[in-house]
Amino acid sequence: MKIKFLLTLLACSLLVHSQDDAAAVQSMYHSSLSNGMSYAWLDHLSNNIGGRLSGSEGAERAVEYTKSELEKLGLDKVWLQPVMVPKWVRGSKETGYFMANDQRHEMNICALGGSVATPEEGLTGEVIEVNGIQELKDLGADKVKGKIIFFNRPMEPTLIQTFESYGGCVDQRYAGAMEAGKLGAIGVVVRSMTLRLDKYPHTGSMTYGDLPPEKRIPSAAISTIDAEALSEALRNEASLKLSFKQSCKQYDDVESYNVIGELTGSEFPNEFIVIGGHLDSWDMGDGSHDDGAGVVQSMEVLRLMKLSEHRPKRSIRVVLFMNEENGLRGGRKYAEEAALNQEKHIMALESDSGGFTPRGFSFDCSDEEFEQVKGWELLFKPYLIHYFEKGGSGADIGPLKKEGMVLAGLRPDSQRYFDYHHTSIDTFDAVNKRELELGAATMASLVYLFDKYGLKNKTSLPIKN
Amino acid sequence: MKIKFLLTLLACSLLVHSQDDAAAVQSMYHSSLSNGMSYAWLDHLSNNIGGRLSGSEGAERAVEYTKSELEKLGLDKVWLQPVMVPKWVRGSKETGYFMANDQRHEMNICALGGSVATPEEGLTGEVIEVNGIQELKDLGADKVKGKIIFFNRPMEPTLIQTFESYGGCVDQRYAGAMEAGKLGAIGVVVRSMTLRLDKYPHTGSMTYGDLPPEKRIPSAAISTIDAEALSEALRNEASLKLSFKQSCKQYDDVESYNVIGELTGSEFPNEFIVIGGHLDSWDMGDGSHDDGAGVVQSMEVLRLMKLSEHRPKRSIRVVLFMNEENGLRGGRKYAEEAALNQEKHIMALESDSGGFTPRGFSFDCSDEEFEQVKGWELLFKPYLIHYFEKGGSGADIGPLKKEGMVLAGLRPDSQRYFDYHHTSIDTFDAVNKRELELGAATMASLVYLFDKYGLKNKTSLPIKN
Repeated sequence: MKIKFLLTLLACSLLVHSQDDAAAVQSMYHSSLSNGMSYAWLDHLSNNIGGRLSGSEGAERAVEYTKSELEKLGLDKVWLQPVMVPKWVRGSKETGYFMANDQRHEMNICALGGSVATPEEGLTGEVIEVNGIQELKDLGADKVKGKIIFFNRPMEPTLIQTFESYGGCVDQRYAGAMEAGKLGAIGVVVRSMTLRLDKYPHTGSMTYGDLPPEKRIPSAAISTIDAEALSEALRNEASLKLSFKQSCKQYDDVESYNVIGELTGSEFPNEFIVIGGHLDSWDMGDGSHDDGAGVVQSMEVLRLMKLSEHRPKRSIRVVLFMNEENGLRGGRKYAEEAALNQEKHIMALESDSGGFTPRGFSFDCSDEEFEQVKGWELLFKPYLIHYFEKGGSGADIGPLKKEGMVLAGLRPDSQRYFDYHHTSIDTFDAVNKRELELGAATMASLVYLFDKYGLKNKTSLPIKN
Repeated sequence: MKIKFLLTLLACSLLVHSQDDAAAVQSMYHSSLSNGMSYAWLDHLSNNIGGRLSGSEGAERAVEYTKSELEKLGLDKVWLQPVMVPKWVRGSKETGYFMANDQRHEMNICALGGSVATPEEGLTGEVIEVNGIQELKDLGADKVKGKIIFFNRPMEPTLIQTFESYGGCVDQRYAGAMEAGKLGAIGVVVRSMTLRLDKYPHTGSMTYGDLPPEKRIPSAAISTIDAEALSEALRNEASLKLSFKQSCKQYDDVESYNVIGELTGSEFPNEFIVIGGHLDSWDMGDGSHDDGAGVVQSMEVLRLMKLSEHRPKRSIRVVLFMNEENGLRGGRKYAEEAALNQEKHIMALESDSGGFTPRGFSFDCSDEEFEQVKGWELLFKPYLIHYFEKGGSGADIGPLKKEGMVLAGLRPDSQRYFDYHHTSIDTFDAVNKRELELGAATMASLVYLFDKYGLKNKTSLPIKN
């Protein structure tokens, strides 16, 4: 009888416990959907500031704007963390065309981020189409020398998660020019990284590795419609000529900032939970999905925590990282300083997959930690959040990784993401207010749970003072 | 040892079984995503045909087009099922404004489907704002008489499933004019059924019930931005005047058709599985989400079944219903004839919630049947299909409901649906190809399973002949 009574008591306490959590989670969703700030912030970031490539005026204005908005939230601390970032500038609008059947076919083209310029009069050459880096290597220097290499492997449509399709192709964009340069090619054009057939060129980062300057060749993306047209034209006329012109330039590094805000923990101020997105974006659109959405959702998490009745036990930081797109300097800097200051981070969560309807999270953590997280899954079911899987997190928080902490990435629906990614149409109108707000509430709910329960089987640090 | 051996055998057979099903489901997704026809069909329906209100030329062209496309699929039968449908015509573009502060504020306005016209010179009157039908009734005839009633209860933003928010408001649109007419009002304007603040008026069906003609008053929807502006103006100036003009008209019923295609079952030809959407749409946009998406997804299900190696045991029908929007005559007709012909329907599945990323299904069935369906849930997990719940299905298949059958509705992500619903922006560009294709594959997979396993504990009919 006594044991039964104790068990009943225990069951009741668990129930109360879980009702509290359910109510807290519900209040996050209710607040975000009814009085949320994320959409208004994104409106400003997208429509008043626009593209925010590292080192640009837009990036600096975004730093000022988000810092001042965080200051309005009544957090315990808001500050800027200086970081040196690369500065690459696109220059004039790129142009390109190929000649087929004696007709000039204009292409929608854009330089890849980090590329060198073409000669002022443009670059012209014969084209070799390859389906990837391996096929390029198999051709060898003899065939590649003096040619423009056209990487045309499309993203695989049958994969359900579009990030997997992207992962299976993006090496062409990132390393194509480096590999082609090694073999003596004079330039590279890459099929844009999207699953659609459309007219938009998609930019993105690329590298020359440690190639000497004379082997660094211009590289650009062309729209998928143009890629299809070029491929077809090449089948009829293998010796056709392609020309493109771009005037992009790499400048010396400049100083920029991560923007950080903190709610200091009441019980374990030296245990940190980080929520973040990246403040920089590519320059062609407004970076509304990538990653304006993640920025404003992360800010909203702190607003929701502050608004809720739950006083954080641990220190909760929003970090708006600079330079994810072409350097990751912000993410590295934050991790360096965290290590220097011996800050114990127990969890970091990034939103950098677009502002679409959230489906859940992927977690980079131990099996034991994952088991703890899975225990919270049912709390999210009323909000149609169902995806709790082990997997990657986010580029900016990657450098923080160490044993005894959980990295997580918000996983929104990915079907439309590459329609907009790194293009001129990544703009405010492509973001739905509710989808954005649901994402923020989903993040805030996870943060609430991590703050309340910490990591099981880990010793929490005592309060300072 | 003998029992253990038998158990091992059983386990192996279950495993093989389930591997077969997993492979069949995978092939549905692969085909839909790599060689699907749904998007091209929708392109034609939306861009070459456009709006398809019952009785319109667009509706008749859609009947011809979908019949001819189904005929190309090599089904066993394709036919038209005649049905008389109402014919309501919008007439000239509606106009409306209110006077506030001596300024004329133009409104984006549209007649509700089924409304009577205003007098040719328009209808002008003072406005009473109410938050719903109950508030209207509480005011009573004295206060309502001679006034234009403005229904302004917004959709509730904190509900996660937007169809629930819609359900909590749509009585204002459907029955507002009937109730206001009973109390002597002269007209009705309704806040559009959307969660966004935007400039688009959303049409939709309304009823006068059995009101005599002299009590039938014009009713129209105004955009949410205009609703907010009108409400604010009324707070400052309760006696302001509102005017609107519409020339819509109800004609006599005309003949139209449900379009039906069938793959006849090899084992149980008299057991039927129906997949459908509705071919009619409202007239202001192209009806791409509502319900062009459901139409082409349903057609795709039969294409995928035909393409797969699985020869259907049961008869599988696609039914493209006419007149869901303002009468449901097609759905009723199909059910009537099915009853007359003593056809045994075991399952009907409708897609009428937009062409967005599918999340799962809701099922209208017994607990026992639901248990069977839940047993298939894991097969869908790789495709991020997680929503298997009891609930409503679809308006067109509702009349088929009887014991011993399962009704189901595809449940796509609902966050954006009411951004487009019944507006001029429900157009092809609002539909994402992959999301549409994923929906079709999700439907085809469920149909495959129902065909293969039938309903447990139900006696299947013998083969005819």
